[in-house]
Amino acid sequence: MKAHFAAVDWGTSSFRIWLMSKSGQVLAERRSHEGMVHAAASGFADILQAHLHAFGAPPSLPVVICGMAGARQGWLEADYLNVPAKLLDIVDRAVRIDDPQRDIRILPGIAQRNPERPDVMRGEETQLLGGLASHSQSAFFCLPGTHSKWVQVQSGSVTGFATCMTGELFSLIRQQSILQHAMGDIDSCDPGNVDFLAGVRDAYDRPSEFSRLLFSIRAGQLLFDSAPERNYARLSGLLIGFEIAGCLSDAGENTTIHLIASGRLRDLYEAAFSCLALQFATTDADKAVLAGLFSAAQKFWPQAILPNNDGSIKT
Amino acid sequence: MKAHFAAVDWGTSSFRIWLMSKSGQVLAERRSHEGMVHAAASGFADILQAHLHAFGAPPSLPVVICGMAGARQGWLEADYLNVPAKLLDIVDRAVRIDDPQRDIRILPGIAQRNPERPDVMRGEETQLLGGLASHSQSAFFCLPGTHSKWVQVQSGSVTGFATCMTGELFSLIRQQSILQHAMGDIDSCDPGNVDFLAGVRDAYDRPSEFSRLLFSIRAGQLLFDSAPERNYARLSGLLIGFEIAGCLSDAGENTTIHLIASGRLRDLYEAAFSCLALQFATTDADKAVLAGLFSAAQKFWPQAILPNNDGSIKT
Repeated sequence: MKAHFAAVDWGTSSFRIWLMSKSGQVLAERRSHEGMVHAAASGFADILQAHLHAFGAPPSLPVVICGMAGARQGWLEADYLNVPAKLLDIVDRAVRIDDPQRDIRILPGIAQRNPERPDVMRGEETQLLGGLASHSQSAFFCLPGTHSKWVQVQSGSVTGFATCMTGELFSLIRQQSILQHAMGDIDSCDPGNVDFLAGVRDAYDRPSEFSRLLFSIRAGQLLFDSAPERNYARLSGLLIGFEIAGCLSDAGENTTIHLIASGRLRDLYEAAFSCLALQFATTDADKAVLAGLFSAAQKFWPQAILPNNDGSIKT
Repeated sequence: MKAHFAAVDWGTSSFRIWLMSKSGQVLAERRSHEGMVHAAASGFADILQAHLHAFGAPPSLPVVICGMAGARQGWLEADYLNVPAKLLDIVDRAVRIDDPQRDIRILPGIAQRNPERPDVMRGEETQLLGGLASHSQSAFFCLPGTHSKWVQVQSGSVTGFATCMTGELFSLIRQQSILQHAMGDIDSCDPGNVDFLAGVRDAYDRPSEFSRLLFSIRAGQLLFDSAPERNYARLSGLLIGFEIAGCLSDAGENTTIHLIASGRLRDLYEAAFSCLALQFATTDADKAVLAGLFSAAQKFWPQAILPNNDGSIKT
């Protein structure tokens, strides 16, 4: 099948590229750790070209990119859209890399320029654009991660959002705080783990006590010799319960949460929502970002745009 | 003036020793970074002896120690007293180092063996013992630090307490999270700083939103180019306001908070309490720990205990 375009999700610390057909099918995929931080040092163009070359992609194959490549420290700054921001507008506001041969577009992020609640996203707007297809045009989204986003979308526009530093705080506390001594080398927990779920509930019920709940993990190890697996699971639960308590208040407990997540994070958040008796519906995050990038590509390149090359995939 | 004993506050990462007169006057002082972590590797006895030698202290001068030297990973474990714990009992429950020449005692910490709220302290109980002299026998204490303690004392007994990881979280977030990029090399803030005070109020009023308030510092820098000094001050305020929100609920807003603190931390917490219109009274932390160690020494060694030596100080 012919490749119609390449889609890239360029995160802070990760890089993913897919070769896509005209109908939006994935023909090939590559992943690496060449995120923005890495690329800012070694060159965005060279990294992209190397992956396209490894695909055997023709020199004229167009590329659509979302994420940190559009940040100020990225490849080419794509100015934020401001809330309220119509998600379809991210396509019109994409920036184009100055390249004589290849059409490369970078989608912008979204900013909330409220001095009381400033916030930014880059990458999640593309997942939301993709996620809209499978939801109504108005929904409340949760996109967990290093910096989890909770987003209110109304009639296809982002009207407000908040970022919790959940994943980053978890890593710092787990690896570098005094709690590291309570966890040994444990690095995952089961979503059904009772300590994970108890952690979710405790932090959700008593969010103001989050910091003391953290220390009680260390104290529990000292006083009751609680096992590393239990401590790790509880820490994970506390972080997620704390996030939910802090962000769900924007919409209310009766709102259906539209979770956009993949893999282990998806499982953990689904378990957390279930144990708190919250309503939710899940969209796979990989599918959502691909759907968003495909929407953009359809608008950029409505027909086959490879007149001088058959676009066949060599590998 | 003759030295009657030496007093030591042996923290996780710091060591302080004072030569004391029979009446509790400080005759000399030394500080170093040879805390428990360092001493566990290089030897507690050698570190103590080197400092006593530098003082020119006689070989029979007795020593009273509080803090992490009594931890399991310390010099000699001094088992925790359990809450409710009479503060005077820490003196009776001290452990004695097996030394033929010198009388060395280590005071125990206090544990809260409540499976729902496990907690531990080592060192703060000695400050509380010292602080009791200048307060009534019933009071609600705040001892800020790496791991801040909030302690309810009733009739001279610790009846309950909580630990917030305020100082440790501040360091991790300031130095290693994405917020580091918003702060440059700033490393202090003035207690009257308006951003510090706004941070205190925001986290105190909306503790469940602490994690998103953190990220908004980064977003404020990206969107409004907020200055490093302002961002640093706001982060400091958020951490302290969050701690107060999570711990004051144990006693209620109308309680007088007995702050035991020194230096910059004292100034910041006093400013935070004032801006939240909370009642407080301050005791200097250095004086409190010395008063506590002196109380213990008076009980251990009620009269001059240096028959073979005049105890005069050489340096």
